[in-house]
Amino acid sequence: MNRRIIFYMLGQILKVEAVLMSLPLICSLVYGEKNAISFVITIVLALALGFLLTCLNKPKDKTFFAKEGFVIVALSWITLSVVGAIPFVISGAIPNFIDAFFETVSGFTTTGATILGGKEIETMSKGLLFWRSFTHWIGGMGILVLVMAIVPTDSGRSIHIIRAEMPGPIIGKLVPKLKSTAKILYLIYICLTLLEVVLLLCGGMNLFESFVHSFGTAGTGGFGVKGDSIASYSPYLQWVITVFMLIFGVNFNIYYLVLVRKIRTAFKSEELWCYVGIVIAAVALVTYNIRNLVDGFWETLRQSAFQVASIITTTGYATTDFNLWPGLSKGILLILMFIGACAGSTAGGIKVSRIVLLFKRISANLRHMIHPRGAEAVRFEGKKVENETLNGVLVYFAIYFVCFTVILIVLLFEPFDLETNISAVAACFNNVGPGLALVGPMGNYDIFSHLSKIVLSVAMLLGRLEIYPLILLFSPASWLKRRKIKK
Amino acid sequence: MNRRIIFYMLGQILKVEAVLMSLPLICSLVYGEKNAISFVITIVLALALGFLLTCLNKPKDKTFFAKEGFVIVALSWITLSVVGAIPFVISGAIPNFIDAFFETVSGFTTTGATILGGKEIETMSKGLLFWRSFTHWIGGMGILVLVMAIVPTDSGRSIHIIRAEMPGPIIGKLVPKLKSTAKILYLIYICLTLLEVVLLLCGGMNLFESFVHSFGTAGTGGFGVKGDSIASYSPYLQWVITVFMLIFGVNFNIYYLVLVRKIRTAFKSEELWCYVGIVIAAVALVTYNIRNLVDGFWETLRQSAFQVASIITTTGYATTDFNLWPGLSKGILLILMFIGACAGSTAGGIKVSRIVLLFKRISANLRHMIHPRGAEAVRFEGKKVENETLNGVLVYFAIYFVCFTVILIVLLFEPFDLETNISAVAACFNNVGPGLALVGPMGNYDIFSHLSKIVLSVAMLLGRLEIYPLILLFSPASWLKRRKIKK
Repeated sequence: MNRRIIFYMLGQILKVEAVLMSLPLICSLVYGEKNAISFVITIVLALALGFLLTCLNKPKDKTFFAKEGFVIVALSWITLSVVGAIPFVISGAIPNFIDAFFETVSGFTTTGATILGGKEIETMSKGLLFWRSFTHWIGGMGILVLVMAIVPTDSGRSIHIIRAEMPGPIIGKLVPKLKSTAKILYLIYICLTLLEVVLLLCGGMNLFESFVHSFGTAGTGGFGVKGDSIASYSPYLQWVITVFMLIFGVNFNIYYLVLVRKIRTAFKSEELWCYVGIVIAAVALVTYNIRNLVDGFWETLRQSAFQVASIITTTGYATTDFNLWPGLSKGILLILMFIGACAGSTAGGIKVSRIVLLFKRISANLRHMIHPRGAEAVRFEGKKVENETLNGVLVYFAIYFVCFTVILIVLLFEPFDLETNISAVAACFNNVGPGLALVGPMGNYDIFSHLSKIVLSVAMLLGRLEIYPLILLFSPASWLKRRKIKK
Repeated sequence: MNRRIIFYMLGQILKVEAVLMSLPLICSLVYGEKNAISFVITIVLALALGFLLTCLNKPKDKTFFAKEGFVIVALSWITLSVVGAIPFVISGAIPNFIDAFFETVSGFTTTGATILGGKEIETMSKGLLFWRSFTHWIGGMGILVLVMAIVPTDSGRSIHIIRAEMPGPIIGKLVPKLKSTAKILYLIYICLTLLEVVLLLCGGMNLFESFVHSFGTAGTGGFGVKGDSIASYSPYLQWVITVFMLIFGVNFNIYYLVLVRKIRTAFKSEELWCYVGIVIAAVALVTYNIRNLVDGFWETLRQSAFQVASIITTTGYATTDFNLWPGLSKGILLILMFIGACAGSTAGGIKVSRIVLLFKRISANLRHMIHPRGAEAVRFEGKKVENETLNGVLVYFAIYFVCFTVILIVLLFEPFDLETNISAVAACFNNVGPGLALVGPMGNYDIFSHLSKIVLSVAMLLGRLEIYPLILLFSPASWLKRRKIKK
């Protein structure tokens, strides 16, 4: 294990976080809030620590492998969240550190699960609300991807980091140079976010709220500024957010293809069509199911489309308390939480492409049972899929359910009903945010004990980083080899 | 597809079913019940149809492959259940055929889910109650295994049938000749069942009820004779049933090894120890969790051990309404439903050996990520496991959750809460029987619509036959090839 490069990268991350935190600081200053000082303290702290780590650990040996990539990503996200939680604690908005850590992890992992009640959110300072949503935006595309894009690094090995941070079973490089890929991704991300800001402004939302909600949508996070989430905004604004949630749930490769005018290739994407198909089917079913609860077809359709888009993209905004919906709708939303949106998007969940590959692998297996001698290759997005990738998807699926069960067992010690506990794990692990019953869109996660909050924080990180980085970080085998060699 | 052999085997199955049905007929006659006539009619019908099928379809070509094996098993189980339901309908005990079919499928698949209320069960005729539990016993070890054991067949290809009917990821032949394996398995099965009958008689249970409950335990089914299941029997009887449920959840290979004095090999079984470990851990947790609900340590332990044994072996007997237990206990029971007991036993669920193999595959994957060049073989029960077997387990796991989700979506249309619907699917698909909430141990499945009852019947068959036979039966590809060749 090349420890120097790990600490060096951590230092870089802290410096970038300090720079990024200047935005909420500016917001705080514009609104003349006293809280600004909490950002200043945190920035100074992060910078100092960052320079210390980078200066002390100038790596002589810049080579690193998949193992280091995973460890760097895992440690970065934990450090990021620990430091990101400091302003909440210093300002007194969330006095307990574990609570603040939960809220920040929820932000960076684009989960949007909160321990704050509606009133606490509405009385929070503008700077902190900005930071809270901005963490979604940073976490959505990935901070290490950002570091790759802006910090001069030896990019030969960076693929290991990108691979560990970007969601999805197959990581495609857009252009031969990885650095350029990272830049292009962030450029598309920034443009789409600004487009949403403009469209929200057109609908009469003020500048501050437009930014906060655009960050929340772009990162498919779900933090807002009101206790009732998006319910009190106009239908136009709700539709804009619906559409943009769905847009940010699409694989960013598609947008790149559109940018370089390969529109036909873009629209041939199997994952895209499956995603669209699932959304349409879910909206239709929910609209049918809640038709007697809401007045008027368009109102019903808007509520149904908003909630479906919010849950499948694992954003977690709400325009109604879907916890009061009938079993069919709640069940569909619960299933959508697990599916998630496309790989290579900012959304969480298992990802549509994994589900598609899973179905293809199963059907290949069934064909093999019927005709044991025939052997057909599985194809996805027009290309042959390697057996290793397919088996990787199967293993991911298995490890996913094992983690889910382990986290659930810890949560079962809470004195709540099964629906609350199971949906809390589903909502955190899939980075959705609100669950059902007590943690539904009108509830929050403050009901849980500190132990459960830590476990749910781990669940959110496991979900966002797709399990492996965290497990490898805590696996003794990752660290042992080096020692053996030393001896 | 060799259709002649399929219909020939179906004929054999019907004849065997007719013979087996003479037992409840005798029981009916002993108790002087009018219902006896319904068994006579069904027996005549089954015999006539059986002879017709075997005479018309004397197979010239006796070769068949995995494909035919799966189809034979799937069709046999459906036929078995359709015919087995007739006595309930003729006697008027369950007038509706779909209800009777549900109850019979639930019997043969050793599920034990019932559409009957407590009063209806207690007023049912002795013959029908006997038949209801006897279906558990037949389904537990498998009717085709029985046919293999008693009917003279060309056993060269029978492995395909055994493989399709016996649960578990790896099918081991006990002795070189498959026919002998089938005989040995049934011999152990009969001896253990009789042992339980004797022990129940010693505890003061009458002969009829001893048989009924031994059948229910041996098949890990769960049909009894009372509305409150086993709750009103003495602690001694409850302990006997607890122990025997656990015994019938063990891989029968272990008993064979003990029989031939290879005790050391038997006790080296990894699956056995994992199974024991899970049971002990679950009993400890539940005992701790319900300590304030029940008076006295031994009473608490008995209730906890009984329910854990009943659910992990997917039997479904109950001595208390565990639906009233706190979330932790209910959650543990829900997780146990999915795990199930050992492969090669009469229990349902995913099976402990599959879970163990899953963990081994995952950890091999993690090791490979840390040391990409190292390659270690996965070992289970002292033997190297082929990659094909491991991948088969992964695919099974994936297809299992896909089926679960599809069945759940249909059930969501019912106007019940999520806990009822999800646990109903879990309880039927894993062949447990009672679920939670409305389908808890004191509820029943009569609340569901006919469509849902059919879907749940399919779920029970999918669970018992481990998915593939039914899917291949309904897959056009299974049937198409033959036609192509004809042309």
